Amino acid sequence: MDRYAKQSRMLVAVDCIIFGFDGYNLKLLLIKRGFEPEKNKWSLMGGFVQSEEKPEDAASRVLTQLTGLKDVYMEQLLVFGKPDRDPIERTMSITYFALIDIKKYEKQLSDNYRAEWFPLERVPRLIFDHEEMVLQAKQKLRYKAALHPILFELLPEKFTIPQIMTLYEQVYEVELDKRNFTRKLRSTGLLIKQPDKDKENSKKGAFYYKLDRVTYTEKLTRFLNFISNPEY
Amino acid sequence: MDRYAKQSRMLVAVDCIIFGFDGYNLKLLLIKRGFEPEKNKWSLMGGFVQSEEKPEDAASRVLTQLTGLKDVYMEQLLVFGKPDRDPIERTMSITYFALIDIKKYEKQLSDNYRAEWFPLERVPRLIFDHEEMVLQAKQKLRYKAALHPILFELLPEKFTIPQIMTLYEQVYEVELDKRNFTRKLRSTGLLIKQPDKDKENSKKGAFYYKLDRVTYTEKLTRFLNFISNPEY
Repeated sequence: MDRYAKQSRMLVAVDCIIFGFDGYNLKLLLIKRGFEPEKNKWSLMGGFVQSEEKPEDAASRVLTQLTGLKDVYMEQLLVFGKPDRDPIERTMSITYFALIDIKKYEKQLSDNYRAEWFPLERVPRLIFDHEEMVLQAKQKLRYKAALHPILFELLPEKFTIPQIMTLYEQVYEVELDKRNFTRKLRSTGLLIKQPDKDKENSKKGAFYYKLDRVTYTEKLTRFLNFISNPEY
Repeated sequence: MDRYAKQSRMLVAVDCIIFGFDGYNLKLLLIKRGFEPEKNKWSLMGGFVQSEEKPEDAASRVLTQLTGLKDVYMEQLLVFGKPDRDPIERTMSITYFALIDIKKYEKQLSDNYRAEWFPLERVPRLIFDHEEMVLQAKQKLRYKAALHPILFELLPEKFTIPQIMTLYEQVYEVELDKRNFTRKLRSTGLLIKQPDKDKENSKKGAFYYKLDRVTYTEKLTRFLNFISNPEY
């Protein structure tokens, strides 16, 4: 066991990157850090992994303690491990990310907590390497969103084309041409037009649509279907 | 800094999952562990992260020390962090994975090292949670291989249909129907037929093909092309 004795032990932390969509804006959840160094600076929700705790349990615990959010499914992202990333002591950080429907969780995220949602284009300066963590999480989100219906799942059951366009614009940080986007979106066969309109957000109103999940699933698996049922 | 003082420090290790293809078989690189516990049992290539070392540098160092392999691009996979995964002391393990062309590296992997390639269907019992690590890496490989031309890149510049079928069969652990697979593969427009045949592996011979990279790239990006240039 000599081999173990001479190794370095280090702190291990978790940091949670929580994206949310409220029907109109893609947002990032942040909190003011509660302890030194960098006390009161904006930070991801983070904390240390305890001696008998799995990292994923640490992530859930930290998120609940700091924000009140419970039962949020988080996916493990990358480990951030530069030796000097925390100025006090070497700390490995395992990042977790989630994309949630803000409205579904708004009761949990009450004023008892100091967490705040920031629109993605107005995120403040963050501590340590947290901006790099957010960047990696955004890339993961883009990648996943291009392959899986995760963005559609954030929309209400009935949604408008302007709503989904806004969401895609915000995730990919691009400006889309409305006519072009609408045409391409319709041509996918993914949308089922509803008889009624949303009249709250424009004079003319915008028709509601629902997602055709059968077509969506077929489209997703068509490309490499010379492989029978790859296990995604 | 009190908050830091009372935390648990732990060992952090890296484990490398190296898949290789030799033109005929998909294989996994393993080594007999050199120290207790579980000395001389089959293991992934692993070791501890040093105090001033980035985890990715630790992964490269460990791989070179144990196998002689240099300049292998490895991608970070998951952290394995169950508190009791190492019986001696709590050790977080960060896994890295790579898929390499065995022939390209065969000179580096000389008899000076005790690393061995095992066909994927004949991998021995592994220590700790290494079998679970391999399972996760296989899933990642399947996922990536369904989306990116990584399997095509492992083939020689000129390859035969039986060769690529074998590779897909081994990655996805399925038996493919030769006629069906050939027909679907041809219909993708991905292959450029060559005038000559490989006659080493069958009496009749099998025509050589090359990959049409332009078509491949187009196909990959077509599905969600209502998003202009998502950054993969």
